[in-house]
Amino acid sequence: MNVNTNREARSEKRERLSSIIPSVSPRFFAPDARTPGDLVRLSDEEADHTRVLRLEAGDLVRIFNGRGDEFESVVEAAARDGVQLRVGLPSDPAPEPRLAVTLAQAVLKGDKMDDVVRDAVMIGVTTIQPIVTARTEIGAAALEKGRRRERWERVAVSSAKQCGRAVVPPVREPISFESLTLTLQASWVTGPALLLVEPGAATNAVTLGELDVEPPKTATVVVGPEGGWTSDEIEEASAVCRLITLGGRTLRADAMGLVALAALYARWGEF
Amino acid sequence: MNVNTNREARSEKRERLSSIIPSVSPRFFAPDARTPGDLVRLSDEEADHTRVLRLEAGDLVRIFNGRGDEFESVVEAAARDGVQLRVGLPSDPAPEPRLAVTLAQAVLKGDKMDDVVRDAVMIGVTTIQPIVTARTEIGAAALEKGRRRERWERVAVSSAKQCGRAVVPPVREPISFESLTLTLQASWVTGPALLLVEPGAATNAVTLGELDVEPPKTATVVVGPEGGWTSDEIEEASAVCRLITLGGRTLRADAMGLVALAALYARWGEF
Repeated sequence: MNVNTNREARSEKRERLSSIIPSVSPRFFAPDARTPGDLVRLSDEEADHTRVLRLEAGDLVRIFNGRGDEFESVVEAAARDGVQLRVGLPSDPAPEPRLAVTLAQAVLKGDKMDDVVRDAVMIGVTTIQPIVTARTEIGAAALEKGRRRERWERVAVSSAKQCGRAVVPPVREPISFESLTLTLQASWVTGPALLLVEPGAATNAVTLGELDVEPPKTATVVVGPEGGWTSDEIEEASAVCRLITLGGRTLRADAMGLVALAALYARWGEF
Repeated sequence: MNVNTNREARSEKRERLSSIIPSVSPRFFAPDARTPGDLVRLSDEEADHTRVLRLEAGDLVRIFNGRGDEFESVVEAAARDGVQLRVGLPSDPAPEPRLAVTLAQAVLKGDKMDDVVRDAVMIGVTTIQPIVTARTEIGAAALEKGRRRERWERVAVSSAKQCGRAVVPPVREPISFESLTLTLQASWVTGPALLLVEPGAATNAVTLGELDVEPPKTATVVVGPEGGWTSDEIEEASAVCRLITLGGRTLRADAMGLVALAALYARWGEF
C-alpha cells in the first residue's frame, strides 16, 4: 500500500513535470554522460537544482553533456551528499545552428557581460571570446583574480539548460584586441569577421545589406565596450574585418551581440 | 576678469561635453519644443538629469520633442525650482527606420517588461502595444493600479535619449489578446502580422526564410508571455497572423521581441 502510494505520488509528479511545456522541463548538465547505462554524479550546483524541484529516486529527467548529446535519465539516488543519475536513451536536444559564429566581445562592466553570455548562448553562438580593448574598464589581471571566466562558464551552462541546447559553448580565456586581430588574420579563410561600429564611427562601415559575402559556414562577430572603439582600433581592425553598422540608432554594448547574431542568422538563412 | 573666467570655464565644459562621443552627448526630452526661439521648461525628471551633469546657464545641449524633432539648445536658467532652455537650430537625430514595426508584447513579470520596452525603443520600434494573454500573470486592473504604463513611458523616453532617436514610440494602453486579433483583422491591409512561437509549439509555423512576404512598410510582431501561448490562442491567431519560429533554440520571452525585430530589419533591408 505504502509502495503503491509512493508510486502514485511519483507518477503524479512525472505528470506534473511533463505537463510543463517541453522547453522548460527539467534538464541537467552532466558532462560525464556518454553512454546509456552509465551512472553519473551531478555537480553540487546541479544537485541543488534537483532539490529545488524535489526530485527523488525514480524520477525521470533529461541530461546533456555540453558536447551535443542529450539523454533521458532516471534519478538513481538523491541524497544530501550527492545526486546520481542513470543515463538512458539518447533524446533530441534543440538543433545547433549550421552557421557557427564566434562572438568576440569586449568585457563589459558589472553584470552586463553575464547578460551577453546568457543571450549569446540562447540564440546559438558557437564560441565566446572575451577581449580586452583600449576602452575596456577592467584589465586581464583583474578578470583572472575575479574568476570572471568561471562565472561566465556557469552562466553559459545555465543558459544552455534554459534554451534546450545540449552544447555549452566554450568561453575562452580573455585576450587583447591585438591578439584577436592576429588570430583573425591567421584564420580569415574560415569565414568573415565583422566588427560592429556605432553609426558614424567609421566612414568605411557598411550595412548588412551592402555586405557582399556569400552565406558562410563560420563567422566572427566583434563587439566593443561601452565606450566604443578608438580610431586606432578601427584602423587596425579594417585590415582583417569588415566594419558593419546596424541601423542608425546607437545600440547598447550589451545588446549589440544579440542584435548582430539575430541579424546575421536572418541574413544567412539560419532563421 | 570674473566674466572672462566664467566664460573660459564654460568653454572648457563645452569642450569636455563635445569630446564625449556624439552618441552619449547630453540630450534632453522637451515635448514642448517646436520652433527655434521658443523657451521650454524641462520636466522635474529631466531637470534632475541636468543637475547630475552640473549644467548651468549658457551651456549647450540638445533637446528632442519625441515626435521626431531635435534642436541645438542653450540653458537659459538652471535653478532649484526649474530648468529653462532656449530652443536653437534644428539638428539631426538618429534616423528612423523605414519599416514601421508595432511590437505587441504580452506583459511580462517584474522588471522584464521594462527591458523589453527599452530594447524595442533602442532598435527602432514604432509603437509598443502591451497585451494580456491567457498565461499573462498580471491582469489589466493590476497593471492600471500599478501605473505600469506611465513607467514604461518613462523607460521609452530614457531609451530614446540613449539611442539618439528624437521619436519616443508610444506605449499603448494594455489590451486583451482578443482585442489585438480583432485589430489585426481590421488592419491586415497595412502590413503583415507575425506571431512568434517557440520551436515545436505550432505545426503551421514557418521560418523567416520560408515567409513569402515582400518587404512591407509596416508590420506587427506579436510576442507571448513566459509561459507561451495556449493552443486556443495559436489557433485564433492563425486566422490573422503568420506563425513564425526563429531557429531551434527556445528564446526567452523578454529577448524574443529584440531578436525578432533585428531579424526582420535584416530580412527587409533595414540593416
